Amino acid sequence: MPAKEKTLNDLFLEALKDVYHAEKQILRALPKMAKAAESEELRTAFQTHRDETEGQIERLEQVFEIVGKPARGKPCQAMQGIIEEGKEVMEEFADSEALDAGLIDAAQAVEHYEICRYGTLKTWATQLGMRDAAKLFEQTLAEEKKTDQLLTQLAENNANQKAA
Amino acid sequence: MPAKEKTLNDLFLEALKDVYHAEKQILRALPKMAKAAESEELRTAFQTHRDETEGQIERLEQVFEIVGKPARGKPCQAMQGIIEEGKEVMEEFADSEALDAGLIDAAQAVEHYEICRYGTLKTWATQLGMRDAAKLFEQTLAEEKKTDQLLTQLAENNANQKAA
Repeated sequence: MPAKEKTLNDLFLEALKDVYHAEKQILRALPKMAKAAESEELRTAFQTHRDETEGQIERLEQVFEIVGKPARGKPCQAMQGIIEEGKEVMEEFADSEALDAGLIDAAQAVEHYEICRYGTLKTWATQLGMRDAAKLFEQTLAEEKKTDQLLTQLAENNANQKAA
Repeated sequence: MPAKEKTLNDLFLEALKDVYHAEKQILRALPKMAKAAESEELRTAFQTHRDETEGQIERLEQVFEIVGKPARGKPCQAMQGIIEEGKEVMEEFADSEALDAGLIDAAQAVEHYEICRYGTLKTWATQLGMRDAAKLFEQTLAEEKKTDQLLTQLAENNANQKAA
C-alpha cells in the first residue's frame, strides 16, 4: 500500500505489533533482573511484574482477535535499546552498592515506555470506535502505572537505607 | 575499577552521559520531525521543543562542570531505538492522514524516556547532596512534562479534526 493511503487503522496495527514484541522481550528480561536484584523487595517486585506481563500479553492477543489479525510482533527497537542498557548496568555494576538503584532506573525506563505506548493505543482505539480494546489497554495502563509507583517507592527506600 | 566497587556516583555519571547523548540525538531529529509534520501547530511545537532542547543540553553541561568531568556523551541505545522507530513512521506514513498521529506518538515516546531519566537523575543528585544539579534537572523535567501535555492536547485536537 502506498504510504499516503495508510490510515490510523494501519498505524494502530503497527503500534500493537510493536508493543506485543516489547512485552515478550520484557517477559524474558524480568527473571534476569529479579535474579540480579540485591533486595528481597525488588526481587519480588520484578517477579510480580513478570506474572502481570503474561496477562498483558494475553490482553494484546485479545486485541489482535478484535481487529481480526494474527498476533504477531514487530521488532521494537526502542525496547531493545532500553533492555540493552539495563543489561549493561547489570554487568557494569554487578555486586556493587549501586546495582539496585540502576536496576530500578532500567525498569522505570521500561514502564515509562509502556505507559506512553499504551496511552496512545487507548486513545487510538477510542478514536477508531474499539471500546473493548480501549478497556483492555486501560487495564494494562493501570498496572503499569502501579508498577512505576512501586519502583519509585523502592528507589526511595533504597536511598534511605544506603544513607542510614 | 571492579564492578563491585562502583558507587552511586559512578551510576550517576553514566546516566548523565546517556541523557547528554540522547539530547544531542533529539536536537538533530526535531527539525526533521517539524519538516514532516502536516499541521502548523505540531510543526511549531517541534520547533519550540528544539530550542528548549538546546537549553537542556546547556544545563547538562553545567552538571558536568559541577561533578568536574568533561561533558561527553555515551551512545544511548534506548534513544537510538526510539528515534529509529520515529523515522520508520515518517517513511511508512508519509503524506498519509495518520502521519501527525504517528509523529506525536514518536515524540511522546521521547518525552516519556526523558521524564523517566531526568526524574532518576534528580533523585540521585539529591541523594548525593548535589542540590544545584537537582535544581537544573527539575527545570528540565518541568519543560519535558509541559511538552508531553502539549503533545497529548495536539493528539486530541488532531483526532477531533479527523473525526469532524
